[in-house]
Amino acid sequence: MARTTEDGTGRIPAPDGTAAPAEATPEAPAAPQREPSQRGLSRRRLLGASAAGLAGLGAAAAGGYVVADARSGARSSGSDAAAAVPFYGVHQAGIVTPAQDRLHFVSFDITTTSRADLVDVLREWTKAAERMTAGEAAGDTGAVDGPIEAPPEDTGEALGLPASQLTLTIGFGPTMFDRRFGLAARRPPALVDLPAFPGDALDPARSGGDLAIQACAHDPQVAVHAVRNLARIGFGAVAVRWSQLGFGRTSSTSRDQATPRNLFGFKDGTRNLKAEDSALLEEQLWAAPGDGAPWMAGGSYLVARRMRMHIETWDRTPLSEQQAIFGRFKGTGAPTTSVDADDNEFDDFEFDTVTGASEPVIAMDAHTRLAHPDQNAGARLLRRGYNFVDGSDGLGRLDAGLFFLAYQRDPRKQFIPIQRNLARSDTMNEYVKHVGSAVFACPPGVRKGGYWGDTLFT
Amino acid sequence: MARTTEDGTGRIPAPDGTAAPAEATPEAPAAPQREPSQRGLSRRRLLGASAAGLAGLGAAAAGGYVVADARSGARSSGSDAAAAVPFYGVHQAGIVTPAQDRLHFVSFDITTTSRADLVDVLREWTKAAERMTAGEAAGDTGAVDGPIEAPPEDTGEALGLPASQLTLTIGFGPTMFDRRFGLAARRPPALVDLPAFPGDALDPARSGGDLAIQACAHDPQVAVHAVRNLARIGFGAVAVRWSQLGFGRTSSTSRDQATPRNLFGFKDGTRNLKAEDSALLEEQLWAAPGDGAPWMAGGSYLVARRMRMHIETWDRTPLSEQQAIFGRFKGTGAPTTSVDADDNEFDDFEFDTVTGASEPVIAMDAHTRLAHPDQNAGARLLRRGYNFVDGSDGLGRLDAGLFFLAYQRDPRKQFIPIQRNLARSDTMNEYVKHVGSAVFACPPGVRKGGYWGDTLFT
Ligand code: HEM
Ligand code: HEM
Repeated sequence: MARTTEDGTGRIPAPDGTAAPAEATPEAPAAPQREPSQRGLSRRRLLGASAAGLAGLGAAAAGGYVVADARSGARSSGSDAAAAVPFYGVHQAGIVTPAQDRLHFVSFDITTTSRADLVDVLREWTKAAERMTAGEAAGDTGAVDGPIEAPPEDTGEALGLPASQLTLTIGFGPTMFDRRFGLAARRPPALVDLPAFPGDALDPARSGGDLAIQACAHDPQVAVHAVRNLARIGFGAVAVRWSQLGFGRTSSTSRDQATPRNLFGFKDGTRNLKAEDSALLEEQLWAAPGDGAPWMAGGSYLVARRMRMHIETWDRTPLSEQQAIFGRFKGTGAPTTSVDADDNEFDDFEFDTVTGASEPVIAMDAHTRLAHPDQNAGARLLRRGYNFVDGSDGLGRLDAGLFFLAYQRDPRKQFIPIQRNLARSDTMNEYVKHVGSAVFACPPGVRKGGYWGDTLFT
Repeated sequence: MARTTEDGTGRIPAPDGTAAPAEATPEAPAAPQREPSQRGLSRRRLLGASAAGLAGLGAAAAGGYVVADARSGARSSGSDAAAAVPFYGVHQAGIVTPAQDRLHFVSFDITTTSRADLVDVLREWTKAAERMTAGEAAGDTGAVDGPIEAPPEDTGEALGLPASQLTLTIGFGPTMFDRRFGLAARRPPALVDLPAFPGDALDPARSGGDLAIQACAHDPQVAVHAVRNLARIGFGAVAVRWSQLGFGRTSSTSRDQATPRNLFGFKDGTRNLKAEDSALLEEQLWAAPGDGAPWMAGGSYLVARRMRMHIETWDRTPLSEQQAIFGRFKGTGAPTTSVDADDNEFDDFEFDTVTGASEPVIAMDAHTRLAHPDQNAGARLLRRGYNFVDGSDGLGRLDAGLFFLAYQRDPRKQFIPIQRNLARSDTMNEYVKHVGSAVFACPPGVRKGGYWGDTLFT
């Protein structure tokens, strides 16, 4: 399994209306073809001659940084999990493209005050993102067989690993639209500061950010490598504000994917907005030209909430209560108004059904009733969250929870009213605490030759 | 991919002299056979009748917690990564068994002062560990189709996932041998408190512990699930002191495994002690009956060090300097005294080779020279560490590093002298900081019918 130097092999078929429309495929760049060992060898000989005798390094050591195995041009294995997801397209990848198993999410503060420097970083990032999502090193040739006197242009820990369905998705926070970069007038009306919700216990050090990048992949080393190299490239212009690893996805974004489980042990993502819901995606996910910020057309708004889950308390809660909170069976995920069987997972809730004692079977304060579109003027979310465990909390418990990520067309009509509903009455609140929060405008996809966010800056 | 209810399928072949000797296999328990859907259905009908009408729950919801898909008896896929590693054996699994890709490590404080309670926890843990390593739920039948009025005996987030080569390895810290449990006289002489090393910046909240469990698996959700369920079972007797996730392994423990890369981008584990080194394992890894603590015979000592890596500084360091620190090429991992080619990764160092300027090619203060057995009276380690990123450090950088785990027969002769050498002169010290530390005596493997650490308590 080598980081492939070709693209176009083993690419994930683009779901309808997603980040990889058919017309984008021919645009996808042909990554440079190399004969790695020859190139490496000649490069090594070349430098070997001039650099021989460097103190502490023998002639053999003076050569360039050659990764014959990683550059051998081996095609990715054909296994889906190793394949590449196209970077270019109408929409950014990493939204409706199939949710990968692992996440590294990073939020940055912009430390430069120069708009030109910011644009430079976005351009450089775009090049690196194109390369890394194709399974290549972050930098150009310098990264792998460049001069030994310079720092490598790729940090190396993903050499030999395949693309692993890496997607990189950028978002711009409300603070980017302050006075620094002359963008105030272009702040989208939908990019509101989130209001305070009852029960919020937000840590500013885990909230906000001028810019964010979501890296998802099937191999966490690949996701971490991508974030680290983007941070490296942005050095001097951006600084990491906070970062979050997620070890297990908690939602499906395609009907082909099995529904995974969150740390309450329940299937999560059953009634998620999915790639196949084409009409709903236009209505609920993608910003449209008439939404008040034409540069965002084809983009989407991301709300991130770090939610601590009190799993120790949960684990002492009877199964009946756990199931009542979600209105779903724990084993199969079927609504509790259905028969408890696997093939009922996708049944609709029957919210009007009552027990013999005339109580609604799905309680009025059940999470899924309160979050359901019927209770929220039809509002839906594309959830794309991840389970996390960040060590322990100093009180004898794991610091575990859900890093909730939800994409939508307008948080004012979607996340905010839904979360108001939940914060007010959700029985689940006893077991969760919102400890981090951020919102980002994720621009449309990049056209070949363009760069991340170019519709905003031009 | 279902959590299999059979064992014996797809088990990893036991490497010579490891946790799974041939004679241990027949001892491995036959997990109870079930006809899940029938069982589930009848169980559901039974409870459905008596529990119908519970407030907030309909008749359909009153049934037990049925996981037909997860209990379908489907055998694990046959793929190695999904398979089960035998729990019983002469040695604990998770030491020389092939290093898995992901880690969740937990250190506990014992909060009970009752020796009997502690032994009870060890017994309960053993049962759960046997089940979980076989790909089953943590609890007995109650966990999956038990009474709805009780908390489930399994937390559920790994239902439907295969064994994923989960290994669970227990260790006892020096503090367990204080006065509380009458074990002072049985403290092994090799279980010393580690001395302070120059440069140590240890955080007590990430150090020490009375007891530790290393959970390794190919799926992090499976490793997290195991730790969480052991913590749940131990509730009231033990409390989590610290816990560490590792997203990428940094060593190989078998010649069949490719050498992975650490966050400096270098191959790590090339010259690790490996399962195939049978004679060396006896000499350097496994405690022997004559070592001063007969109950530890067949066990091993684990040193854990959380090492922060200053990757941002590293990434600005020339390739030449990076390679000089390890005496190895970054691309191929070959010693810098060899030609830079893949098939030279396993070449021996030629420490005496000098450059034209009469400098040693492998510097005197190179990490690998200082750590090499030649410099340490032949001492070796079985390294089994993991890369980590725990968010950010509040100073604009990722909190990234290596969670170093090393098994050995006697830390007084192995880790301590090697680390003294490194702490004194390793050029790598400029880029790393030791921020957590712990040492544990890992008892021998469990015989069927026994429990973790029974040789200590009987
Ligand atoms: C730790 C926090 C949370 C947990 C454990 C959780 C868990 C779940 C589960 C198990 C389901 C049912 C399966 C499904 O349809 O996906 C669900 C549904 C849903 N959740 Fe959450 N959730 C959490 C937080 C939130 C938040 C903060 C929101 C939005 C403000 C939200 C919005 C939804 C929505 C929209 C649905 C689908 C409702 C439907 O149409 O049936 N959830 N959640
Ligand atoms: C962040 C910390 C560390 C990093 C990045 C690191 C990295 C490496 C690398 C890249 C190698 C060469 C490949 C190999 O043979 O595995 C190596 C070798 C080795 N390291 Fe480390 N190491 C670290 C800490 C330590 C510590 C704390 C010890 C023990 C006290 C140690 C002991 C060894 C040993 C025994 C070898 C093999 C030496 C030989 O026989 O050639 N390392 N390390």
